[in-house]
Amino acid sequence: MSVASDCSAITSLTGRFRTTRQRMLALCEPLTAEDMMVQSCAEASPAKWHLAHTAWFFESFILREFLPGYHIFDRDFSWVFNSYYQSFAAFPEKRLRASFSRPALDQVLAYREHVDEAIEKLLDQNPDPEALRRIELGVNHEEQHQELLLTDILHAFFTNPLRPAYRLATSGLGAPGLDSETWKSTAQGITNQASSSPNGKLPSPRYLNFPGGLLESGHTDSGFSFDNERPRHRTWLDPYRLATRLVTCAEFAAFIADGGYRRPELWLSAGWDAVNANGWRAPLYWTEATEGAAPESSNDWRIFTLRGNLPLSSLQNVPVSHVSYFEADAYARWAGRRLPTEFEWEAAAETQAVSGNLLDSGLLMPAPAVGILPNHESAQPSESQLFGDCWEWTSSAYLGYPGFKPLAGSLGEYNGKFMSGQMVLRGGSCVTPAAHIRASYRNFFPPETRWQFSGIRLAS
Amino acid sequence: MSVASDCSAITSLTGRFRTTRQRMLALCEPLTAEDMMVQSCAEASPAKWHLAHTAWFFESFILREFLPGYHIFDRDFSWVFNSYYQSFAAFPEKRLRASFSRPALDQVLAYREHVDEAIEKLLDQNPDPEALRRIELGVNHEEQHQELLLTDILHAFFTNPLRPAYRLATSGLGAPGLDSETWKSTAQGITNQASSSPNGKLPSPRYLNFPGGLLESGHTDSGFSFDNERPRHRTWLDPYRLATRLVTCAEFAAFIADGGYRRPELWLSAGWDAVNANGWRAPLYWTEATEGAAPESSNDWRIFTLRGNLPLSSLQNVPVSHVSYFEADAYARWAGRRLPTEFEWEAAAETQAVSGNLLDSGLLMPAPAVGILPNHESAQPSESQLFGDCWEWTSSAYLGYPGFKPLAGSLGEYNGKFMSGQMVLRGGSCVTPAAHIRASYRNFFPPETRWQFSGIRLAS
Amino acid sequence: MSVASDCSAITSLTGRFRTTRQRMLALCEPLTAEDMMVQSCAEASPAKWHLAHTAWFFESFILREFLPGYHIFDRDFSWVFNSYYQSFAAFPEKRLRASFSRPALDQVLAYREHVDEAIEKLLDQNPDPEALRRIELGVNHEEQHQELLLTDILHAFFTNPLRPAYRLATSGLGAPGLDSETWKSTAQGITNQASSSPNGKLPSPRYLNFPGGLLESGHTDSGFSFDNERPRHRTWLDPYRLATRLVTCAEFAAFIADGGYRRPELWLSAGWDAVNANGWRAPLYWTEATEGAAPESSNDWRIFTLRGNLPLSSLQNVPVSHVSYFEADAYARWAGRRLPTEFEWEAAAETQAVSGNLLDSGLLMPAPAVGILPNHESAQPSESQLFGDCWEWTSSAYLGYPGFKPLAGSLGEYNGKFMSGQMVLRGGSCVTPAAHIRASYRNFFPPETRWQFSGIRLAS
Amino acid sequence: MSVASDCSAITSLTGRFRTTRQRMLALCEPLTAEDMMVQSCAEASPAKWHLAHTAWFFESFILREFLPGYHIFDRDFSWVFNSYYQSFAAFPEKRLRASFSRPALDQVLAYREHVDEAIEKLLDQNPDPEALRRIELGVNHEEQHQELLLTDILHAFFTNPLRPAYRLATSGLGAPGLDSETWKSTAQGITNQASSSPNGKLPSPRYLNFPGGLLESGHTDSGFSFDNERPRHRTWLDPYRLATRLVTCAEFAAFIADGGYRRPELWLSAGWDAVNANGWRAPLYWTEATEGAAPESSNDWRIFTLRGNLPLSSLQNVPVSHVSYFEADAYARWAGRRLPTEFEWEAAAETQAVSGNLLDSGLLMPAPAVGILPNHESAQPSESQLFGDCWEWTSSAYLGYPGFKPLAGSLGEYNGKFMSGQMVLRGGSCVTPAAHIRASYRNFFPPETRWQFSGIRLAS
Repeated sequence: MSVASDCSAITSLTGRFRTTRQRMLALCEPLTAEDMMVQSCAEASPAKWHLAHTAWFFESFILREFLPGYHIFDRDFSWVFNSYYQSFAAFPEKRLRASFSRPALDQVLAYREHVDEAIEKLLDQNPDPEALRRIELGVNHEEQHQELLLTDILHAFFTNPLRPAYRLATSGLGAPGLDSETWKSTAQGITNQASSSPNGKLPSPRYLNFPGGLLESGHTDSGFSFDNERPRHRTWLDPYRLATRLVTCAEFAAFIADGGYRRPELWLSAGWDAVNANGWRAPLYWTEATEGAAPESSNDWRIFTLRGNLPLSSLQNVPVSHVSYFEADAYARWAGRRLPTEFEWEAAAETQAVSGNLLDSGLLMPAPAVGILPNHESAQPSESQLFGDCWEWTSSAYLGYPGFKPLAGSLGEYNGKFMSGQMVLRGGSCVTPAAHIRASYRNFFPPETRWQFSGIRLAS
Repeated sequence: MSVASDCSAITSLTGRFRTTRQRMLALCEPLTAEDMMVQSCAEASPAKWHLAHTAWFFESFILREFLPGYHIFDRDFSWVFNSYYQSFAAFPEKRLRASFSRPALDQVLAYREHVDEAIEKLLDQNPDPEALRRIELGVNHEEQHQELLLTDILHAFFTNPLRPAYRLATSGLGAPGLDSETWKSTAQGITNQASSSPNGKLPSPRYLNFPGGLLESGHTDSGFSFDNERPRHRTWLDPYRLATRLVTCAEFAAFIADGGYRRPELWLSAGWDAVNANGWRAPLYWTEATEGAAPESSNDWRIFTLRGNLPLSSLQNVPVSHVSYFEADAYARWAGRRLPTEFEWEAAAETQAVSGNLLDSGLLMPAPAVGILPNHESAQPSESQLFGDCWEWTSSAYLGYPGFKPLAGSLGEYNGKFMSGQMVLRGGSCVTPAAHIRASYRNFFPPETRWQFSGIRLAS
Repeated sequence: MSVASDCSAITSLTGRFRTTRQRMLALCEPLTAEDMMVQSCAEASPAKWHLAHTAWFFESFILREFLPGYHIFDRDFSWVFNSYYQSFAAFPEKRLRASFSRPALDQVLAYREHVDEAIEKLLDQNPDPEALRRIELGVNHEEQHQELLLTDILHAFFTNPLRPAYRLATSGLGAPGLDSETWKSTAQGITNQASSSPNGKLPSPRYLNFPGGLLESGHTDSGFSFDNERPRHRTWLDPYRLATRLVTCAEFAAFIADGGYRRPELWLSAGWDAVNANGWRAPLYWTEATEGAAPESSNDWRIFTLRGNLPLSSLQNVPVSHVSYFEADAYARWAGRRLPTEFEWEAAAETQAVSGNLLDSGLLMPAPAVGILPNHESAQPSESQLFGDCWEWTSSAYLGYPGFKPLAGSLGEYNGKFMSGQMVLRGGSCVTPAAHIRASYRNFFPPETRWQFSGIRLAS
Repeated sequence: MSVASDCSAITSLTGRFRTTRQRMLALCEPLTAEDMMVQSCAEASPAKWHLAHTAWFFESFILREFLPGYHIFDRDFSWVFNSYYQSFAAFPEKRLRASFSRPALDQVLAYREHVDEAIEKLLDQNPDPEALRRIELGVNHEEQHQELLLTDILHAFFTNPLRPAYRLATSGLGAPGLDSETWKSTAQGITNQASSSPNGKLPSPRYLNFPGGLLESGHTDSGFSFDNERPRHRTWLDPYRLATRLVTCAEFAAFIADGGYRRPELWLSAGWDAVNANGWRAPLYWTEATEGAAPESSNDWRIFTLRGNLPLSSLQNVPVSHVSYFEADAYARWAGRRLPTEFEWEAAAETQAVSGNLLDSGLLMPAPAVGILPNHESAQPSESQLFGDCWEWTSSAYLGYPGFKPLAGSLGEYNGKFMSGQMVLRGGSCVTPAAHIRASYRNFFPPETRWQFSGIRLAS
């Protein structure tokens, strides 16, 4: 990690801490206490739990250990808001979180304030470098839960028969630190795009060549990273090509119309089982506008987003999202392409500045590519969709890098114990904080996962 | 049904309607909007859903049909708050009710007010007798949901790791229409009982003889009843005996201590499967006070109630509650007795006035028997526990009486379609409104159900 | 029970024992050792297991206890072939029976011979009356397993993609003690019936009146009975009517064609759940002759039987079989009738001689009614279908009669512990030995069961 | 692939074909027709099905296409014995294979003869090179099923409560082409080993250094390989160390005794879930010799093998087998090591001749290491256990190599569609034919799989 114990580093960390903690509250602004109770699928947690658990993280791994005389807010919270750290304390089953009507939201907010004050106090005391490293980890942890909170609320509101919108399609987010002007013009762009060309659809994606070779992958140790991004290590890559943008909703609708969900030859065996067991016929959040219409012969889908339930016709060029690895893989096979490996992706992204449609844009949904992935020597990264919009499924299984070492103690459970049965995703999404993402960042989910903002970039 | 369309009948119905609707709100007073979101088991619904569904019932079956010019509050609610009336409209899966953060509690309360005003208006118009019959049905329906609301909240609070109490053990209910003085003295009684005799336990129950014969069972058609209580019909009963009180917690603890949950010969085959599949070792809501103590060799249980988590030692003479039919049946076999049939029960109760520890006492938990079931000619019913405390499992399967006819139309789905795989319970519980219960009343649940206030009376 | 310990009684029991044991082998004649390994659903057991378990019953409950010096055939068999007697010994999970390739069939046959010789030896010794009672029980037990063996083989052969026939449609059974001439003429009748009238279908069933009253039900204690048929006791019956024959395949096809499986209002709630969870669209063993044809608009079903896969067109008047209680109940509701109670059925059957299309006819499938249920004073019972053809679902839950006492010891587990969640069926089927059935006989299965030869008689 | 269409190549292939087909029958010699019906877990198939499916493979992919005038043995078999080739034909659900009592074993053997004759006829006709390539594939396919047949029979016999042995511990296999002398001396070695040193246990394994570097992995295209071993491609390996032998039963028993199955910190998250969901406390086929003894404090395990149920005390130095990936990974973490990647393993094995305890030894169970893994320049491979004994779990997920292309047509479903959620195993086992295995061979199973002969080699 990168935190030096000098004054400017502490000042910078303090700022980052405050921004992050405040944004968490800002994200909850459109939500009622009732909304913050909902846990609508196995992957999700209630928003109130996210608020409490992120405070718990600071209390459990930093304040209890590094702040002399720290007063624990409530002893019960120590195990109630533990997520999965077996070596720290017992914890309630995840599925029970929907029953945590107590503590009330007010108490959770008081818990956060209590923790905030204590962390500020600790930062004032020129603390141990390990404390600073852990605060930085806590900030990154909270950023992850900001993303999860929005991901979970999208599912919660989709599950609600009334299908409420988190934000109306035409409004800015209006929360501190979020640029509502940017959003408004982008949203305008989405709405107008369909009329900008004869049929309104983007041309086929271009593919850029990458030479490969014996490259280095993984975090360079400048700045923060998670343990699973390290150590930097060599990998050999054959020459490869990457699409200059993500697959769009219109393109994915063509896959559906071509019988994509009914042709076993396009699917991995486990994927075909998942299609049939779950009755998948389209990405999550796609519903048929007209009850009873044969969906494959029509364009008549509606897509539920944090901005409401929008017609496919207005989202033709928006990247398809909320597809499983199985769907991404089947789509690639149908298109005669493949998914990139995580190392191919990282080599392409490593030279790019982090920029794109991330949480900070306030858009809260993927946006059409407005350009192309440039030659990687003269990057204009905002046009490549490498960062933001959707997490990109790679064909790499989530495993430890050669020489991987988890953090010591309970924090070693953060990433390492999940290195089985999951696939790597890269690049962040429209609900990832910009400060949180980087080229070496590895996200990971089981291949059947669809509740995430997960999309498709083709390779060959 | 019994409602005549004369003025006094309407006045009486109006009063009953108001009382019932107000009590529903009073019961929610100790709950936050967050509490009212929790749905912690398959049988339960969130409290807010109970509030909304009972309004939906009046709107759907009465106002839409009988009040000219009635303005539907919100078209979406027509299906969102339908429970299971297939022939009325589609409805969301029951398990999704926990995601109904919208409509917000305020909107649901406004919905209730809207419906209240419309019903009052209808009652002012000297309506069709069928409308009056349905309003009476709606009142009874709401009373059922009052009981369910409390039953569900008990489960919700037990699921919460913090185990909050709905009401503290020493406080009155403080809600309109509930007699907090009665509660206080009774609660005092519970606390004091242990010291009133050498070991503080009740002596073995006495058994009263009943002659049986060719009797009539079922509702007499004077006053309201559900369709499943009709028609009154003849049944033959051999002479039988009934215990004068319910089985107590101390008695059930002796069953546990004698290895009751480990002896297959005491159990029905399906019951033994349930014991093993669910790991049952005690009634629902019983937990071991001392982690790791062998529970069978100790008295060291705690029992979670709406009044908090209380030690078994202070509840020795309180009727055991929250047992399944399988546990009731196994206990009876262990005790060398049997459960009564619903007709045996009804013949004993029919001559008694309805009185006992019902919702109106405000106790909200079963109370010790303070007397005995009297000779049924000179009834002092409050001492028999026939009404209130716990629903009593009978050995009768829930089936239609000879000549049973469900109500016409959608309301025919109210009771009849559940006549499969369930057992009859009789007598109401400590959360049943006194106005709601009667000797012919038939409750019914699957034999593995434990979330109900369900207890045991022995017969032989 | 009825066995007196005099010589003629012993002689008669010996004859019954021999006949029963030999018939078990005769039933296995069309089967290979491989066929006898198959266990194709949760209800079924392999044929070889039936052979072994019935020997085990005699060894465990009679020979070990009553034959001095009896040599146990193989100690391992004592628990391997125990079915469910918890108090006797441990036993393997039922689903594992398909793995019992060892002991080989030859060893099982040797086990049977060993047991046969020992029972004969015991019978020669003028044994204890209790031994005789248990041998009689063992014979009845084996008859039950003969029926189960054929029921299970039907399911096994239906599961096999090759759909082999147990017996060809045009052949006699050819087994000792079975009348193949009877079968041939009856089978001829089935084939010819369609041409015997304009549309070949039976007219609507007639209904006979029964006066009801305060009747006695249950076994009279003359001859053998199971514990669950006793004690004889009084029941009150209102006047009722019973159809003179069972519902036919053609009639049930009309229910299907009328959308019976798609109309929730016709079904019990648990039944509707079962329809949807299992995708039921017709009785078990009905398949569409033409792949892709809309089954409801056609008569184009094939029905798999022990005689092969036959077209509905040749089985129009044959009683529908292999329906669940839920389907029987829904059919009755659709037809504007109801199912009879077990007491109504018994009162009608009690005056009839036991006669009908039972196992002894060798037909092995239900046959068309050739007459009507006569006035119950002048019975010609063979024409009523009360006995044989199909077990008849009643609307009575399977519970103990007033004063019911299970047998002592392990044998008490025979019937009593299943008195939960099951419905009573009456009358035996085309695979029930004639010597086994009687008017008081109670069979019982969970309401979703379809693998049995279970059919429908209407009442009103 | 490698088959040239010259005479000597055809002669050699003919010999390989005959040997393989005959060995399949030899493996079935100890089995009865009843044994060959058993399918005791989801992974397994009945032995008869293996016999039939391997014939089906030759018929479906070779004879139908390449032998003019070929007479299909039985049209029904075309879909009944299809395993999973969706694009070839429909197929029955895998779990139904236990119901295939018909066709009888005799018919399946006749099917095999019919196919054998036709293949010999085709080989006589100097066929198309593609036909030869597919015959070679068919031979390799049949070798895979030989291994599966033995793996499945081990599970079948373990499931049988009688626990029969496939071969007695002291007998040779006595089947054509299997060297029973080798087996006898090896078996003797197992029995005697315990007395060869003070406590009879092997010393800790040595670790050999490998330099790594930019190496090539994958099949070299000389000789047969499966599509998933190609193309050969470059990978970068950091220097690494490999244990000279597999982990033994004694070593794994020490892991158990140290609480290995009760310490979540040793396990992957999904592994810990599997431990708890399945109640794992030891490898599959380990049972406690003494009922009720605390297994962790004793050496008192018995291990079921194809040679019977043997005490751990006589298998101390035998490699532990039938562990899941999760158990292998947890053991490695406990031992302070890790599992090798598939590329590390292949680089070590590539220079070694294929030799070891494979099917051809006739031992049918893992054997103790009798030497050490040599310096890879001067290999004595029989002492390294790299080939044979147990498949070795690697830490590599099963994915396509860069540029992977599945076979064309239906055969493309052979390997590629399983590239999700599985881990790679290397090296073959004691039931793998020696002719079948090679350094580039990739086996693959889901991480929870235990029915395979799967063991552990440590790396660091």
